[in-house]
Amino acid sequence: MNAFCAIIFFSIGLLALPDAWAQQQKSSATEECLDCHSTLHPGIVSSWQKSRHAAVTPFEASAVQGLAKKVSIDNIADGLKNVVVGCAECHTIEPKAHADSFEHNGHNIHIVVSPKDCGSCHKSEAEEYQKNMMSQAYGNLMENSLYRLLIDSINSVPPGSGSGAPIKSDLTDADSCLYCHGTKMTVSGVQTRETEMGSMDFPVLSGWPNQGVGRINPDGSKGSCAACHSRHEFSMEMARKPYTCKECHAGPDVPAYKVYEASKHGNIFSAVQKEWDFKNTVWTVGKDFTAPTCAACHISLLANTDGKVIANRTHEMKDRLPWRIFGLVYAHPQPREADTSIIRNADGLPLPTDFNGGMAVIFLRTKDEMAAAQQKMQSICLACHAQSWVDGFWGRFVNTIESTNSATFSATQIMLDAWKRSLATNHSKGGNPFDESIEKMWTDIWLFYANTVRFSSAMGGGGDYGVFADGRYQLKKSMQQMKEWVESRAAVKSKGKRPAAP
Amino acid sequence: MNAFCAIIFFSIGLLALPDAWAQQQKSSATEECLDCHSTLHPGIVSSWQKSRHAAVTPFEASAVQGLAKKVSIDNIADGLKNVVVGCAECHTIEPKAHADSFEHNGHNIHIVVSPKDCGSCHKSEAEEYQKNMMSQAYGNLMENSLYRLLIDSINSVPPGSGSGAPIKSDLTDADSCLYCHGTKMTVSGVQTRETEMGSMDFPVLSGWPNQGVGRINPDGSKGSCAACHSRHEFSMEMARKPYTCKECHAGPDVPAYKVYEASKHGNIFSAVQKEWDFKNTVWTVGKDFTAPTCAACHISLLANTDGKVIANRTHEMKDRLPWRIFGLVYAHPQPREADTSIIRNADGLPLPTDFNGGMAVIFLRTKDEMAAAQQKMQSICLACHAQSWVDGFWGRFVNTIESTNSATFSATQIMLDAWKRSLATNHSKGGNPFDESIEKMWTDIWLFYANTVRFSSAMGGGGDYGVFADGRYQLKKSMQQMKEWVESRAAVKSKGKRPAAP
Amino acid sequence: MNAFCAIIFFSIGLLALPDAWAQQQKSSATEECLDCHSTLHPGIVSSWQKSRHAAVTPFEASAVQGLAKKVSIDNIADGLKNVVVGCAECHTIEPKAHADSFEHNGHNIHIVVSPKDCGSCHKSEAEEYQKNMMSQAYGNLMENSLYRLLIDSINSVPPGSGSGAPIKSDLTDADSCLYCHGTKMTVSGVQTRETEMGSMDFPVLSGWPNQGVGRINPDGSKGSCAACHSRHEFSMEMARKPYTCKECHAGPDVPAYKVYEASKHGNIFSAVQKEWDFKNTVWTVGKDFTAPTCAACHISLLANTDGKVIANRTHEMKDRLPWRIFGLVYAHPQPREADTSIIRNADGLPLPTDFNGGMAVIFLRTKDEMAAAQQKMQSICLACHAQSWVDGFWGRFVNTIESTNSATFSATQIMLDAWKRSLATNHSKGGNPFDESIEKMWTDIWLFYANTVRFSSAMGGGGDYGVFADGRYQLKKSMQQMKEWVESRAAVKSKGKRPAAP
Repeated sequence: MNAFCAIIFFSIGLLALPDAWAQQQKSSATEECLDCHSTLHPGIVSSWQKSRHAAVTPFEASAVQGLAKKVSIDNIADGLKNVVVGCAECHTIEPKAHADSFEHNGHNIHIVVSPKDCGSCHKSEAEEYQKNMMSQAYGNLMENSLYRLLIDSINSVPPGSGSGAPIKSDLTDADSCLYCHGTKMTVSGVQTRETEMGSMDFPVLSGWPNQGVGRINPDGSKGSCAACHSRHEFSMEMARKPYTCKECHAGPDVPAYKVYEASKHGNIFSAVQKEWDFKNTVWTVGKDFTAPTCAACHISLLANTDGKVIANRTHEMKDRLPWRIFGLVYAHPQPREADTSIIRNADGLPLPTDFNGGMAVIFLRTKDEMAAAQQKMQSICLACHAQSWVDGFWGRFVNTIESTNSATFSATQIMLDAWKRSLATNHSKGGNPFDESIEKMWTDIWLFYANTVRFSSAMGGGGDYGVFADGRYQLKKSMQQMKEWVESRAAVKSKGKRPAAP
Repeated sequence: MNAFCAIIFFSIGLLALPDAWAQQQKSSATEECLDCHSTLHPGIVSSWQKSRHAAVTPFEASAVQGLAKKVSIDNIADGLKNVVVGCAECHTIEPKAHADSFEHNGHNIHIVVSPKDCGSCHKSEAEEYQKNMMSQAYGNLMENSLYRLLIDSINSVPPGSGSGAPIKSDLTDADSCLYCHGTKMTVSGVQTRETEMGSMDFPVLSGWPNQGVGRINPDGSKGSCAACHSRHEFSMEMARKPYTCKECHAGPDVPAYKVYEASKHGNIFSAVQKEWDFKNTVWTVGKDFTAPTCAACHISLLANTDGKVIANRTHEMKDRLPWRIFGLVYAHPQPREADTSIIRNADGLPLPTDFNGGMAVIFLRTKDEMAAAQQKMQSICLACHAQSWVDGFWGRFVNTIESTNSATFSATQIMLDAWKRSLATNHSKGGNPFDESIEKMWTDIWLFYANTVRFSSAMGGGGDYGVFADGRYQLKKSMQQMKEWVESRAAVKSKGKRPAAP
Repeated sequence: MNAFCAIIFFSIGLLALPDAWAQQQKSSATEECLDCHSTLHPGIVSSWQKSRHAAVTPFEASAVQGLAKKVSIDNIADGLKNVVVGCAECHTIEPKAHADSFEHNGHNIHIVVSPKDCGSCHKSEAEEYQKNMMSQAYGNLMENSLYRLLIDSINSVPPGSGSGAPIKSDLTDADSCLYCHGTKMTVSGVQTRETEMGSMDFPVLSGWPNQGVGRINPDGSKGSCAACHSRHEFSMEMARKPYTCKECHAGPDVPAYKVYEASKHGNIFSAVQKEWDFKNTVWTVGKDFTAPTCAACHISLLANTDGKVIANRTHEMKDRLPWRIFGLVYAHPQPREADTSIIRNADGLPLPTDFNGGMAVIFLRTKDEMAAAQQKMQSICLACHAQSWVDGFWGRFVNTIESTNSATFSATQIMLDAWKRSLATNHSKGGNPFDESIEKMWTDIWLFYANTVRFSSAMGGGGDYGVFADGRYQLKKSMQQMKEWVESRAAVKSKGKRPAAP
């Protein structure tokens, strides 16, 4: 393969191809799918037609040289090489590996396309993503005994309280926590449906639909690329805009989008993004955009205007993150492994920190590893800011981690005291540590307010989210309420033991 | 009228007409209005100039054939037919019917244009809207004795507490609940004002300004088309974008916009809407847009890429809605009539459900009626999703209705118990059931948290709004606080009766 | 200078100049800066290249005649006149005046560009801004003994509670309140850093980075133009879009952006802004935009379509504002001076109102001054609305100020009573009036809910923010909780004195 070809193929990759050409390159299987489904589901077919998948064959895409190359596998399977990536290419690949594969008009279709399927072309990205904590989001939540108690305290509805209808908690979990964390999908049977094409059999999938980041797929793989790369346009523009991240980062526990939107970066994005280029594979700071989106800082391949790489693409978010500012119950160095269900703190609990602020160090990054991640992130900051700016900013961020951890420590001491004095009952005595009022005030502190303050600091969204919008003000209010709750309960309890002193 | 003409007029409708032509077709009365008002109020005149009203005569518009026809009356009044729809056409129509009509430079002007006026051309839409619960929003709120108690508990300010100035509660109502529900407008007098044109008389309208969905107009009609079709551009693009619905659906009681914005649909809209066509009368899934906005699912005329109708236009929202997920105090089948002030539950209260979860069945839709509405909504889902996707999604939605109703039942039992034990005082004992702390915790549950969880489920906005953002977490926290409130009050009360046991 | 030249220069100002030309006009100093920094910091250099600063010389800009003229100084310094406004023009001006000036490759650079620097061309704007309360935001907060107690109650972390690391409260303040209010910047030393250019010295700036509206700069001036005019594009489009104001007006204390976004004005902006012209210096109502943004009502130079001025540009926000609806603790007439730290109420406290609602009248605007500001604001309303609309709207707004002040009065009476009965301890007894539970409930009322209700009314964002979204509902709930808190504490206290009555 010579440079001349590379240039040609590179150009092909960047141009919108004429429909006619793309048309020719569809596989016959995909043509068959489209015969019915383009009328049945015009929305998703149109989305797909706008995608690069519909316009470029993997062979053409893999011929691109240099940083702009998006296909990261060395040898593309023969069947995929010379047709555009259509319905059949994703939904019929490796049928035996997919438990949800079923016979449909002569083809073995599987409904759920998995990261393993996408990895047929995007191998590095699929592999990186398995090292991303998000890919383990199902197990990290559901296989942690303490987090299960938190889920119970949120999702359970008192038995016998309803109109008689049973409370199906698996459906509730799928509609709440697992919407983002991902469901576990299993084939629970076969259903026969009357269709316009006559009677047809379809697999029944529990946990479907779902596009959570840690979905357990019928082929055993973890995650859903469609969480961020929405079906079926798989638009890089969409993944690079912050609206995508907002799907799961909007609440008070992880208010990343809200903070971004109120930050200087978010302001610049909102005001002038219409003039930016979100489609350039090598995303060039200054030329393509003038303020970062979520993707710019956390994922994308960035270059400066001289074509020099500022940051390599990564689908392992913690690659650029020294700290995990999501408190459990304290902010802590990023875990070393994506699977956090293996972590045990000094007290044997499945938490990265213990209640007195100690770190489960053997499971967490070392200082050197943190420094490497910090250096990667700061090299992005430096594309627009001088070192003194970055240093000043980072110093405040570290101070905010320390001060919110200190605040959490104070709140946790009140909580431990209440548990010790049996004013509330925790897991060690067979209770749920998250279900009583004071436990919920404590949870508000480390899960909502300390996190919001940290996100505000980390993303330069300062102001309101650091103070009055789920910030330090609310944190201190909750702490004061905890104190008064203990005082009031302790008074009641002591009165129960002996007559009140006159 | 032959097909050839139809095509010509149809084309006219779709093109931006040259200013010169539009100019010729204005009525002389409208020309007179514009002589002064284009300088006095350049903002609204410019908006109007961008509207179809300024570019097309009703005769031309009514000549359009097929689905693209927007005029729905058979015989347009002669005076309206051959001029564009300008100031005078709307603000001078049927002057005797409008109590706010007044003489102004030789014309009988009325300030408030009503759905009846709009119905001069858009007859079906005006009629459908009268069957829409929104059109009755004023009476449904203000003529319900229980909801009036809720308003009192929110809007009243303790007497004698201020700086001496009287608290005008009608102004407060207009500034709060009735901003969305609509005010009742009456002509309360005449005012003489010095203007650039000399001394002039104008009617004084109480309740003005207002564009609430259930406004009671001076001609006796109900509603305001401008609630969604903002004056004076009356842009279909604007009505189809979710920002319009946000004006009234932003709070924790009906957080539709917030949930939409965080949903996959909302993400796709936010990221790629700039490439969509919001102006095509027959809104084509896939071609014009690739993810639904509020209007797509609830109102718009939708077709697939073959021109086959997916959903007929409706201005009666409940046409596509089997359930009313806004709890009063439970979610329930949609009421059969738009006027809900007639509803009485088993206890004789003006609520669609009783406190133990029983439904006021004779006022609510039957299972068959619900199934018909469900089928209409699902046919829209199916334009992008397979049946198994829709079934899985809907199963979770119904489960969420059941589980949030169960949670509301539990909370209501605590409330009923507190009322029974006289720890709080409700309407049956001459109190307000919404003014004490525990009553407000209870209201938070059924009005904010249960609703937010249901909207999150209904709109696939899952994640945060179903859990930590006014979701199940807050619901359970409020319920726990209710329990502890009762325990604490009951303890105080029992101590008042006999000395505390040693 | 003749009219012909004026026209030519005016045209130059409006056109995007060819790069080549702009290139020629850079100062040699700026060329030197760009030699390194265009590669080091491609983001900000690209932003600058898109700015008018990079395309027009001050001489050209000052030759513009009439309203479109942006340069407001009479005599531009010679060194600035005939080069575009590049790096060196702002960062090396008057080096002796800047405490942060340092030698850098033969130039005396200062990092922090101040309003005084910007005033070299934009003199009127810099002067107006000094009369704007925002410019005094640092001192207005930090030099008010009562507000310092509020900050302490929010930002302090209990001593000895953390992991041993010291809690640097100056960093916390910079990361929270001062993010918007502005930090006080001082040069605290010199740092030597290894760079790609070898070893270099840089000043160490405490309080850096910061772009708060009341920043105390190393040259002694107050404020940061970059708070709204983001570096280095300084785009008028950006400043005119509401996203800019959101950076500091998003929280429950000043929810201007949230209310705007849910208002009719905000809806129109969101839906059709893509068709507006945000760059026209004389911003023409109707032609350039059809609904106001924050800037339109509060700052921008507005004209009608005949070119007649509707509102003069002002960088002193209170110019168009009769009331200050941010309660301290009541809404009150705008202060006369931007420096509010001088205000004392009847009780000698540094507040514009006393706890019983009395106004510190000598520091506040007179009725006549208020009427003048009201007239300026209403003349903007009248560009789209008739007088009867404006009157109805304004009547409700004044009623809302009165009724929220009345509600605050009731809540404050409960607070005063609790302080009097020693159920809580305030500043007069050496306590902090903002740190106990009931004090925080009280703060919620006047700082969050009353403010939100007023913003909702003031900006016609009615509905949700006036009722259920931090509105009247939450206000009354907090008030009820205050009452019950007092009852419960008083009961405990009286029991402590004598045995409970049987």
